[in-house]
Amino acid sequence: MSHPHPELSSPGPLAEHGLRIVPLGGLGEIGRNMTVFEFGGRLLIIDCGVLFPESEQPGVDLILPDFEYIRDRLDDVEAVILTHAHEDHIGAVPYLLREREDIPIVGSRLTLALITAKLTEHRIRPTTLLVKEGESHRFGAFDCEFLAVNHSIPDALAVALRTPAGLVLATGDFKMDQLPMDGRLTDLGGFARLGAEGIDLLMSDSTNSEVPGFVTSERDIGPVIEEVVRTAEQRVIVACFASHVHRVQQVLDAAQANGRKVCLVGRSMVRNMGVARELGYLRVPAGLMVEQREIDDLPPEQVVLVSTGSQGEPMSALSRMANRDHQIRITEGDTVLLASSLIPGNETAVNRVINGLTRWGARVVHKGNALVHVSGHASAGELLYVLNLTKPSNFMPIHGEWRHLRAHAKLAELTGVPTDNIVIAEDGVVVDLVDGRASIVGAVPAGYVYVDGLSVGEITETSLKDRRILGEEGFISIVVGIDSTAGKVVAGPEIHARGAGIANADFADVIARVATTLETAATDGITDTHQLNQLIRRTVGKWVSDNYRRRPMIVPVVVEV
Amino acid sequence: MSHPHPELSSPGPLAEHGLRIVPLGGLGEIGRNMTVFEFGGRLLIIDCGVLFPESEQPGVDLILPDFEYIRDRLDDVEAVILTHAHEDHIGAVPYLLREREDIPIVGSRLTLALITAKLTEHRIRPTTLLVKEGESHRFGAFDCEFLAVNHSIPDALAVALRTPAGLVLATGDFKMDQLPMDGRLTDLGGFARLGAEGIDLLMSDSTNSEVPGFVTSERDIGPVIEEVVRTAEQRVIVACFASHVHRVQQVLDAAQANGRKVCLVGRSMVRNMGVARELGYLRVPAGLMVEQREIDDLPPEQVVLVSTGSQGEPMSALSRMANRDHQIRITEGDTVLLASSLIPGNETAVNRVINGLTRWGARVVHKGNALVHVSGHASAGELLYVLNLTKPSNFMPIHGEWRHLRAHAKLAELTGVPTDNIVIAEDGVVVDLVDGRASIVGAVPAGYVYVDGLSVGEITETSLKDRRILGEEGFISIVVGIDSTAGKVVAGPEIHARGAGIANADFADVIARVATTLETAATDGITDTHQLNQLIRRTVGKWVSDNYRRRPMIVPVVVEV
Repeated sequence: MSHPHPELSSPGPLAEHGLRIVPLGGLGEIGRNMTVFEFGGRLLIIDCGVLFPESEQPGVDLILPDFEYIRDRLDDVEAVILTHAHEDHIGAVPYLLREREDIPIVGSRLTLALITAKLTEHRIRPTTLLVKEGESHRFGAFDCEFLAVNHSIPDALAVALRTPAGLVLATGDFKMDQLPMDGRLTDLGGFARLGAEGIDLLMSDSTNSEVPGFVTSERDIGPVIEEVVRTAEQRVIVACFASHVHRVQQVLDAAQANGRKVCLVGRSMVRNMGVARELGYLRVPAGLMVEQREIDDLPPEQVVLVSTGSQGEPMSALSRMANRDHQIRITEGDTVLLASSLIPGNETAVNRVINGLTRWGARVVHKGNALVHVSGHASAGELLYVLNLTKPSNFMPIHGEWRHLRAHAKLAELTGVPTDNIVIAEDGVVVDLVDGRASIVGAVPAGYVYVDGLSVGEITETSLKDRRILGEEGFISIVVGIDSTAGKVVAGPEIHARGAGIANADFADVIARVATTLETAATDGITDTHQLNQLIRRTVGKWVSDNYRRRPMIVPVVVEV
Repeated sequence: MSHPHPELSSPGPLAEHGLRIVPLGGLGEIGRNMTVFEFGGRLLIIDCGVLFPESEQPGVDLILPDFEYIRDRLDDVEAVILTHAHEDHIGAVPYLLREREDIPIVGSRLTLALITAKLTEHRIRPTTLLVKEGESHRFGAFDCEFLAVNHSIPDALAVALRTPAGLVLATGDFKMDQLPMDGRLTDLGGFARLGAEGIDLLMSDSTNSEVPGFVTSERDIGPVIEEVVRTAEQRVIVACFASHVHRVQQVLDAAQANGRKVCLVGRSMVRNMGVARELGYLRVPAGLMVEQREIDDLPPEQVVLVSTGSQGEPMSALSRMANRDHQIRITEGDTVLLASSLIPGNETAVNRVINGLTRWGARVVHKGNALVHVSGHASAGELLYVLNLTKPSNFMPIHGEWRHLRAHAKLAELTGVPTDNIVIAEDGVVVDLVDGRASIVGAVPAGYVYVDGLSVGEITETSLKDRRILGEEGFISIVVGIDSTAGKVVAGPEIHARGAGIANADFADVIARVATTLETAATDGITDTHQLNQLIRRTVGKWVSDNYRRRPMIVPVVVEV
């Protein structure tokens, strides 16, 4: 197996009949999936998603792939193919289209409907091309065939990419539910046909490569949801992802079967299910839906609410219900169903919501105590099927953290892919497919681009480091006014501190020390602001460390009057 | 079931023959366990532990129970009984003894040895009383019988507390391993005997009350560890809790059986295992142990390291190995075994460590992919045994978050404890046992007391709120020097910003706006510093919000010259 090395440098030119593959996101992380393919000087992009920040990135709203690698070559981009409409595959499209609005956006019907709705909110009118499984389309040098895959959102696609360099199969996110709700199976027959033709490189979803066995069918969740709804004493509140059409369908069916009305709560839930219903992906029986204002007029045992907030997002309806900070008041006898996965990093927030809801007397049903969620990603057992059917010459695990990529590589090895033909890359690592052999040839920048409020890319690692220090320790600012001509202090020292956990009265001692430091400095003829700043910083820093064993940010401000 | 209500007020006086129970920690949270019992004006305390902070408490080192309720009555305290030596049961003892050093500390042999070692580091010499299972001791009005329980540290005890108000059984943390490593079973016979005598109140460990079934025996882990060690190609690094003597014993046995030497890494691991070895809880074959400096002289296949850091603590040896920031360099072929639970809240940190280790080529074995950990707390199936054997008249679930307390209450209901006799309390809720009936009678303060560096209790919720804002958004400080007599600006405005993610050059615009605001203020004759601060805050706040959609902390500083 080839491992990337930190010392990788910029790659040399691509061989004439070679295909270059540059993952700008999604390798070494779960999220912001984006891969750039290059052949004959032209580019094709598959997916363009966002990553959600962790606590290490405080205050950040979203993380985008770094477009720097293609910024000067946007005119070379033939198209962006979106495999499905999850945020980690489409969320960065608005930011890419800001740089060139007419890049053709290619996807299935539901995918295009959802990205178009999102782009409308960004006031962008995209150029789109609707494709579906079984079709082939040519984008410049790139000949693409689309294959059905099933996932936790309808209408997902895999892409078989043919160029003179060879045949690449990129699965996108997928699982292999053999009894899917919409009957749309992952096209293993197609995978087998491509395998027979000869796949030069397989790029396959690694998310669940560490999970042994097989994913339970989505269909097995229906009866559990039905039973929860049937046996609930009062209201039922279901929280799930705003894009999980099949899960919502099962909730609607359970409500209908038990004489309950359904109300959708949350902007993205209402928007997405509106789109899904309009396109026929969601079947809504007449008279089933009610508006939120009508709920209070219905007896609690006739109500099902479907809401976002399954990840414990603090501002979501569900979190606010848990805090009694929402017009829907949880009471003894209510049932809350968390019909979704728990995305790593959200454990604490979700636990807080469960405790809050329980405190008010709700019964909380979640994947820890009932079969109310199955993953959208194929497990190891299923990944082996794909590897055996496609028999790739080269293999590159995608969509996953290191642990997942490595586990997937092991599976490939077990199925007989030669160790040397397995490429574990990470974001920015450049892989060339030349003469039937995939190998790492260098690396390009692929850092995090942070979105915070309206700004994109202006928050730097330095800002985040400052935030982490401020968030852990607070700051102490010392303001002094200096008459630079007379060389003496004319105002202050004044202390302004926040988050340092030191009472104002306790600063008297250090104010006196700073004053003494400045007197000494004046005597020594030191008037340079930078030097004075240093002296103040040192005096205050030592005082805090000695007396409190803490290291707040120290911000000396010497104002010349 | 009685539910606490936020509107509970201070309780009235305790009935003459009543027993008052005041949990100051551990109810509504996992950690800082501490319960105060009062009878006839005298107090007895069971446990005195710490809680570890979550991301909501940035910069905090530890959270203590609030001693305020007993602060004026420290002389009434007969003793502090420690059920076992985990931090969440003993960690706050040094802080309590600072307030009265001669409170007798009661515990089993290992518990006293470990708390004494901790207190020595705090330069406190405690008054101790050694007790063991089967013994009874009288502490003033409190007649205490000690019973063996097994847990993830040796020598844990339950306490049966007899006063004229009745018999209370407090289990402490426990599980019911039927084949424990040291043969020391949870004393179900004793529980049954007390049940036959008539238990007026059972207070039982709720940590795993949501987990169905039974905890696997600690003994079943041994063969798995042995196999990992036997099949490892190179070094084996085991991370586990520094107090888990039996787990470490199994690692030592596996190393011995496979001709490997063992090195302990980490201060608390070395200290605790030293104590355990000295007292005979840990059996160390002669010649097995080596020092860290000797490791490099041994072939990798002859080395086992036992380290702390199983929770992904950033400064631990294991985290530093994952970051290649430790003298022990992980290489292809090394095996890392995380032989511990994953404490909620640490998922992201542990995931980061696993990815880091995997990246350098280590095989990481953890409870997600092998049976290398079992819980120290009884599951629902086992809790039912205890409820059925003790047949308590009243039940009060302890040690757990709301979800756990409530699930445990349900189990009690199923075994026939009358619903009205089940008391779900939380920290600070006062429960009186009078005439054989336990009921909630009020509440006392039981807030978080934060330890940060050297200060205890000085960090307030306001400091933490400031830290959260600073950590998410940073700050912008605007410094202006004003000549108060002339009523005009003589220095600044100057901007000092950190973590706000706005480049210095971009502040020119808002500096001009502030200057204009101040000119207008001067014209209007406004010289009051407070008013000027408000004007500056509003000007800058609006500018940031309009241009960046962000809300950093804004700190105006008007210096009068």
